[in-house]
Amino acid sequence: MTDIDDIAARLRRLEDEHDIAQLIASYGLAVDAANADGAAALWSEDGSYDVEDWNMQSQADVHAMVSSTFHRDLVSKGCCHFIGPSVVTVGGDEAVAISESLVLVRDGAGYRVWRATANHFELRRIDGRWRISRRTSRVLDGQPGAHALLRSGLAGAVAPALGEAAT
Amino acid sequence: MTDIDDIAARLRRLEDEHDIAQLIASYGLAVDAANADGAAALWSEDGSYDVEDWNMQSQADVHAMVSSTFHRDLVSKGCCHFIGPSVVTVGGDEAVAISESLVLVRDGAGYRVWRATANHFELRRIDGRWRISRRTSRVLDGQPGAHALLRSGLAGAVAPALGEAAT
Amino acid sequence: MTDIDDIAARLRRLEDEHDIAQLIASYGLAVDAANADGAAALWSEDGSYDVEDWNMQSQADVHAMVSSTFHRDLVSKGCCHFIGPSVVTVGGDEAVAISESLVLVRDGAGYRVWRATANHFELRRIDGRWRISRRTSRVLDGQPGAHALLRSGLAGAVAPALGEAAT
Repeated sequence: MTDIDDIAARLRRLEDEHDIAQLIASYGLAVDAANADGAAALWSEDGSYDVEDWNMQSQADVHAMVSSTFHRDLVSKGCCHFIGPSVVTVGGDEAVAISESLVLVRDGAGYRVWRATANHFELRRIDGRWRISRRTSRVLDGQPGAHALLRSGLAGAVAPALGEAAT
Repeated sequence: MTDIDDIAARLRRLEDEHDIAQLIASYGLAVDAANADGAAALWSEDGSYDVEDWNMQSQADVHAMVSSTFHRDLVSKGCCHFIGPSVVTVGGDEAVAISESLVLVRDGAGYRVWRATANHFELRRIDGRWRISRRTSRVLDGQPGAHALLRSGLAGAVAPALGEAAT
Repeated sequence: MTDIDDIAARLRRLEDEHDIAQLIASYGLAVDAANADGAAALWSEDGSYDVEDWNMQSQADVHAMVSSTFHRDLVSKGCCHFIGPSVVTVGGDEAVAISESLVLVRDGAGYRVWRATANHFELRRIDGRWRISRRTSRVLDGQPGAHALLRSGLAGAVAPALGEAAT
């Protein structure tokens, strides 16, 4: 009734989706501690991160962003990159994941929500470990690009070409 | 020591809980893109969604809500239906899940939190796929109904009968 | 190619990480309903919860906190303890998990974000069930303690000794 190869394939699917969800959840936890090594290690060496008008083209670029004065000031003031559950679609050694996230910044005795974002991830299994090969993020301010990311991500499709972010 | 039938049953439990959590996470991603087909497909044809004073009685009703002018205006302005992790209890081909969610709307250069909600889901496996048969949501504004949903959901029990939402 | 003992070990890893993530997600759902029994049951009898200047040293202390007038007033007014996805590292019968959380409180027709917190969990398998043996939480207001929790949690390490919370 149950065959060990079938079980192994189903287990592998769960492992992949679980490991990718954990990788994505790690991002916020790393950047909120200004942990540039931890955040950059989630990308492949040539992985990209396109977020509005900040276009990173490598793991080194992601490292530089988390190490930047702008980001470190945010962390010193108090910030929270809060990522929701990911919906993951795996096909062999490639995967697509989609999730929403909030960025909150300290404001008086509480926090204000600065950004609410759609995040589309393309991932690749490299030496047995998942890495982000391409992340595309757009703020949910009504712009069609954010909606296109949500639609393609839920369908398990790669990110569409987006123009400049609408304002 | 480990028997293949035992392994198959444990794997099935994880698959079910995982697939249900992904289904629930998909909801916010679909509605924030005004993707009415994607959102409605999460329900069974006769599935219901009771949220405060909006009482949907079918998949078609959910589709109509996401297609409504009210909802499309929210999406155009910029909104984020942010769902937290679900706690899922499966019994055969029926399941209960509970999670909290936020709805944020664009406000100036940031977002304000409009709603924080307790969401109770009853699900059924139909043709091998999980679908929502009943969703009941109440805002966390101190009303006993929201607390009753949280308590029954955590216990893996179906939703209690709720009166009109308290204000 | 696939050996049943290997499969059993991989399945066990997924079960552990899944069950721990569900346990942590349960916390917010319990406390938002002032469900003191449900919240306290997540801890071992001698488990601790150190959150800023509130230092609970047992399951009974956690129960007392959720039963307190302060907490019940928060629930009556309307509050949401919103926990993000956990990143979990298991080693045998011990585990470390890390997640961020928000606390929102009802404010007029909406909610304001009162706290955004780094939460570090140490867990132990007791009679076949995971329980929190130590939870350490610090607000993300720029204090080094919160960053140290995030770093040790992501590395799967126990929580560092923290001084008084910085303000």
